[in-house]
Amino acid sequence: MKFNNSPIGIFDSGLGGLTVFKEIRNILPSEDLIYFGDTARVPYGNKSKETIIKYSSEILEFLSVKGVKIVIAACNTSSSLALDDLRKKAAIPVFGVIEPGAKKAVRVSPSGNIAVIGTAATIKSRAYSTAINKEISFLTIDKNLKTNNHTKIIEKACPLFVPLVEEGIINEEITKSIIKYYLSSLIAEKPSCLVLGCTHYPILKGLISAELGRDTEIIDSGVETAKAVKYYLEENNMLKKENKNGSELFFVSDDIDKFKELGGKFLKRPIENVYLTDGIK
Amino acid sequence: MKFNNSPIGIFDSGLGGLTVFKEIRNILPSEDLIYFGDTARVPYGNKSKETIIKYSSEILEFLSVKGVKIVIAACNTSSSLALDDLRKKAAIPVFGVIEPGAKKAVRVSPSGNIAVIGTAATIKSRAYSTAINKEISFLTIDKNLKTNNHTKIIEKACPLFVPLVEEGIINEEITKSIIKYYLSSLIAEKPSCLVLGCTHYPILKGLISAELGRDTEIIDSGVETAKAVKYYLEENNMLKKENKNGSELFFVSDDIDKFKELGGKFLKRPIENVYLTDGIK
Repeated sequence: MKFNNSPIGIFDSGLGGLTVFKEIRNILPSEDLIYFGDTARVPYGNKSKETIIKYSSEILEFLSVKGVKIVIAACNTSSSLALDDLRKKAAIPVFGVIEPGAKKAVRVSPSGNIAVIGTAATIKSRAYSTAINKEISFLTIDKNLKTNNHTKIIEKACPLFVPLVEEGIINEEITKSIIKYYLSSLIAEKPSCLVLGCTHYPILKGLISAELGRDTEIIDSGVETAKAVKYYLEENNMLKKENKNGSELFFVSDDIDKFKELGGKFLKRPIENVYLTDGIK
Repeated sequence: MKFNNSPIGIFDSGLGGLTVFKEIRNILPSEDLIYFGDTARVPYGNKSKETIIKYSSEILEFLSVKGVKIVIAACNTSSSLALDDLRKKAAIPVFGVIEPGAKKAVRVSPSGNIAVIGTAATIKSRAYSTAINKEISFLTIDKNLKTNNHTKIIEKACPLFVPLVEEGIINEEITKSIIKYYLSSLIAEKPSCLVLGCTHYPILKGLISAELGRDTEIIDSGVETAKAVKYYLEENNMLKKENKNGSELFFVSDDIDKFKELGGKFLKRPIENVYLTDGIK
């Protein structure tokens, strides 16, 4: 069996991608991880496709120079709008978070409606609808599998969720009010599952789930992406050989202290080895 | 009498500075105006001093090349953190929005408490407290003027206000809830005035005023800045000679359509002549 001991690169517009980082760390404890948070330009979700491609490409270049074996766009906005472009540019595999989340939604929701929430840019791109419909078409070919080709996909942008999470306003009454404000129209559609289509949203998962009720399963794209990455590395003999604790390096484009403070809350443990880089600014 | 027919440069992190632009246009209808909104990197209020100085300096350079006669940092965050630096670099006068707002607050509040709201970065900088205390000290020297040297200054960061305004979520119940969430602690201090220490906030002025009640005067730094700029141009023989309608040019670093749509709501009229520039990205 072959191995690849290079690190895995993970990036996001800011802190949100740490929810994916956490899942990768859980499922692949030996791997060396390099995270990049573009805190000087956060958020991406309210910006244009051209700008999101430009920023994402700069980060891909930054991580490539660090010698990573794969890159994970741990940002739904970037995955929605820049993934095709990144894959054309990259000499290494690039993973997004949309496809794994969409696949899981189709699996857990064989007949009911599927709800998707995300940033304005992600929802506008209709990337989840496209990926879900593609998966449904694929499953429909295989007659042995249940299909949900009568499923309605309801997408909803929740632009205040990222600032709420980036500001650390998590367990406040106001957060519940904002969640209610965005989700009331979705609840009326009685979705059997809801995809958290932004890597910041798992931080609000408990409150979102409480608002939706037990009949709606919450799908965390980060969890599904981590599983997909693990599977890919195994299949392609790209896992790290040594079975010891993987190292961790964090790069941000702005404000190390804020990243350490809030990021620690994301990972539920202290963050070390955070470095400021202005190479991509 | 001498004149100066060069345009006035005005910049902000995004749309917020349009509230200052509007006041400048009202009070100086003949002047040619060039506006720059850094929509690719908005917001500034949650970023570090170093990054805000870097971004502001790039915009100063951009506007200088356009031949403006003065530059207005129509962004409280930039005025709080970058103004000294910009003034050192610039060959032309640079105005901020803090000092005019602070002066007005001291004038209208000779004895009561002064409240200031702004972004996290503006409030953390304590720029308003510094400017207000400086003005109080100045007035105290002149025995003929009423002074408020027993005034308490209460500063409060309201980080969700900018995303609310940038997303156009203005007249919603949720907006009232968020305003109540931030302002309840200020109201308890019975301030005689409240400074809108962010150029986005005038869009929420009606709701903020309703929450505070009649006894608290709302001060719009943009209005005061426009008056200060007019006075300066008159005193220095720098007004435009021709008494005709001034021209308007808008530059953004991202998404012309969104700027036109939301910006039109800020100015309460259609916006023309918007150009995308990636020169400063």
